[in-house]
Amino acid sequence: MNPRKLLLESFTAAVKAADPVHIVPHHLPKPPVGRTLVIGAGKAAAVMAQAVENHWPHDAPLAGLVVTRYGHALPTQKIQVIEAGHPIPDGRGMQAAKAILTATRQLTADDLLLCLFSGGGSSLLALPLPPASLRDLQVLTRQLLRCGASIQEINAVRKHLSAIQGGRLAAACRAPILALIISDVTGDDATHIASGPCTPDPTTCADALDVLDRYRLNTPSPVLRILRENHETPKPGAFVFCKVENRIIANSHRSLVAAADYFQTHTLNVQILGDTVTGEAREIAKSQAALTQEIHRYPHTLRAPIALLSGGETTVTVRGNGKGGRNTEFLLSLAIALDGQRDTYAVACDTDGIDGSEDNAGAIITPDSLVRARQQGMHAPHYLARNDTYTFFKQLSDLVITGATHTNVNDYRAIIML
Amino acid sequence: MNPRKLLLESFTAAVKAADPVHIVPHHLPKPPVGRTLVIGAGKAAAVMAQAVENHWPHDAPLAGLVVTRYGHALPTQKIQVIEAGHPIPDGRGMQAAKAILTATRQLTADDLLLCLFSGGGSSLLALPLPPASLRDLQVLTRQLLRCGASIQEINAVRKHLSAIQGGRLAAACRAPILALIISDVTGDDATHIASGPCTPDPTTCADALDVLDRYRLNTPSPVLRILRENHETPKPGAFVFCKVENRIIANSHRSLVAAADYFQTHTLNVQILGDTVTGEAREIAKSQAALTQEIHRYPHTLRAPIALLSGGETTVTVRGNGKGGRNTEFLLSLAIALDGQRDTYAVACDTDGIDGSEDNAGAIITPDSLVRARQQGMHAPHYLARNDTYTFFKQLSDLVITGATHTNVNDYRAIIML
Repeated sequence: MNPRKLLLESFTAAVKAADPVHIVPHHLPKPPVGRTLVIGAGKAAAVMAQAVENHWPHDAPLAGLVVTRYGHALPTQKIQVIEAGHPIPDGRGMQAAKAILTATRQLTADDLLLCLFSGGGSSLLALPLPPASLRDLQVLTRQLLRCGASIQEINAVRKHLSAIQGGRLAAACRAPILALIISDVTGDDATHIASGPCTPDPTTCADALDVLDRYRLNTPSPVLRILRENHETPKPGAFVFCKVENRIIANSHRSLVAAADYFQTHTLNVQILGDTVTGEAREIAKSQAALTQEIHRYPHTLRAPIALLSGGETTVTVRGNGKGGRNTEFLLSLAIALDGQRDTYAVACDTDGIDGSEDNAGAIITPDSLVRARQQGMHAPHYLARNDTYTFFKQLSDLVITGATHTNVNDYRAIIML
Repeated sequence: MNPRKLLLESFTAAVKAADPVHIVPHHLPKPPVGRTLVIGAGKAAAVMAQAVENHWPHDAPLAGLVVTRYGHALPTQKIQVIEAGHPIPDGRGMQAAKAILTATRQLTADDLLLCLFSGGGSSLLALPLPPASLRDLQVLTRQLLRCGASIQEINAVRKHLSAIQGGRLAAACRAPILALIISDVTGDDATHIASGPCTPDPTTCADALDVLDRYRLNTPSPVLRILRENHETPKPGAFVFCKVENRIIANSHRSLVAAADYFQTHTLNVQILGDTVTGEAREIAKSQAALTQEIHRYPHTLRAPIALLSGGETTVTVRGNGKGGRNTEFLLSLAIALDGQRDTYAVACDTDGIDGSEDNAGAIITPDSLVRARQQGMHAPHYLARNDTYTFFKQLSDLVITGATHTNVNDYRAIIML
């Protein structure tokens, strides 16, 4: 089979496994005796809400409110969609969070709270605990995102400053809760998606203070006051969570498994190299290139024909002023390291359909990528040095363009050796 | 078995597979009818020369001259050992190279040229072609090492400026040649070890000029003159090479295979992740951590108990002012990424016995490395941020200290999951 076709179809399989249109219907519960309130936050919130509306029994009452990023709203009929700020929270998100909390408090034991969470929900659903203000939260979030703290550390702080996250939404609710979650965090611990409005929080105020201290942040005094007064979030084992189910309905690993199934039906061996790959994109490429070369030269436990799959979220430290995202950066570094290794092809795409700031989801490399580039007068290392990887693959006509997919389980990468 | 013992003994097995004392004797040919001239260059040249002397028949004539780095000489009786400059060539290396070329020219078809090459030989065996001077070579080498050019690109230039490298030693010799090579280059193409004195050179003067142009080097005019006059090196297929054997007697892969054998006798599965791993140490660690977590959570083709082995040469971009080498940097990043994953241990050491500038070959991590560090008041990410990884492992008493091993096949890394 055509290797390009194999790669593109595997990406399609990976995205489909994470597409709310396909997967949300399978997870909808029976309507409760009472009312169903749908709430949600995240980049996929609107499309998840649409999927709920389209498959909810027509005679069962349905209402709600979800928050998504600016530009991500979609038309709905019963569930209101609000656009708000990301990654820095804004007033619209705060108003939405307040409305969600108020509506949730009105539910009774006969009702159902159906939550739709996806990546980005932490900032979209921001509701500062008094006496902290939205401004305090904005100031602190900016610092947290820049200081090098891990997402675990950032969320330890966020959860303790929120009136709705860190399990506090669940604590405010008398109705049973089903939270459907599309995970874009590595390891997909539900407590980190939208900062876990319905999950117990294993971290403490002391942990949050440690983070602020460790990274020497300039912390607004109302924030310090909240943390020092030991305003604790609900902890694992707390009674409130016995009526809550947090269900991951899509994540990087399921998408990788869907792609693995696709390759296996095309008689390739498969090894998943991790669904939680982080690190500098060009360096991760070198690591995967080394394994690819090993398998090429010394087939052993892993042997061709094989697909090496991985997910997670790499990073790009920008050095030049070119155009490109982390997936094209990964691919160009991989092509340079593989140096035309025969029968070896790869794809890398962002499952949300947009790799960085351009119009492409990612790109494809072939054994002759560098040769074709040279014929066009392109010296690959120069394009990598300038982070101009979008331009490189555009000139080769090797971009993958899908448009927005309305879901996100982070990156999808596949190297195939035929 | 004790995981620390497993890791340390596997490293011992890897080093032993590359130790000239053990391996050179197996590769010594029968003495020729005439004389045997031993020449050589590299970090392991002296210990290789010793091994030849100790195992050469007492009644067979033996003489020669090898060049090694300052501080690497060892006592010999028949083969002279000279110390010279690395990585920038100096006058002592040039004198030695001249003496080697002169002695080689005097050999006849009844004699044997026995060459001993190892890493570092490119600069140790520098003999500029006239009209280029040693100074020109030094000026150019400094620029080449700093400009970001690959070793292939650097050597394309070096070989065309050398009177002895790029196959020119073989071209000057009437006797049969056996070159025993310890490879510390990724992919161990013999043409890149000591810049291939006895190997055909596939690159051209035009390639060399391209490199100078690509990296916009300030090239001394005698160098340009040589390259523009098309002073070509002997090419693959040239008649002179039919009497030459270039034999790799040690490299990263053989050491990894020796370690793999060791682990298999202790009933672990094994996958080699590559003998040519390059890239930023802390990022490569994240990549390997992701695979380790994958195997931990979803045992599939690769499954515990397993050893994941790799070689090659990572790099460290120094950001802080701490102490440490690339192997301890790799390990601390790995420990942070694994975050105490149970039953998972790792070792990373430089096979030459010195990781960076300190006294250790590398170190070991255990599932409780971070916990033990915390008990001592050490916050691991801070040590990594400061590149102070030697101090971190020293305080944990987890350094691996072997002293100089007198060989070098680059790094040895093993992650075991029991």
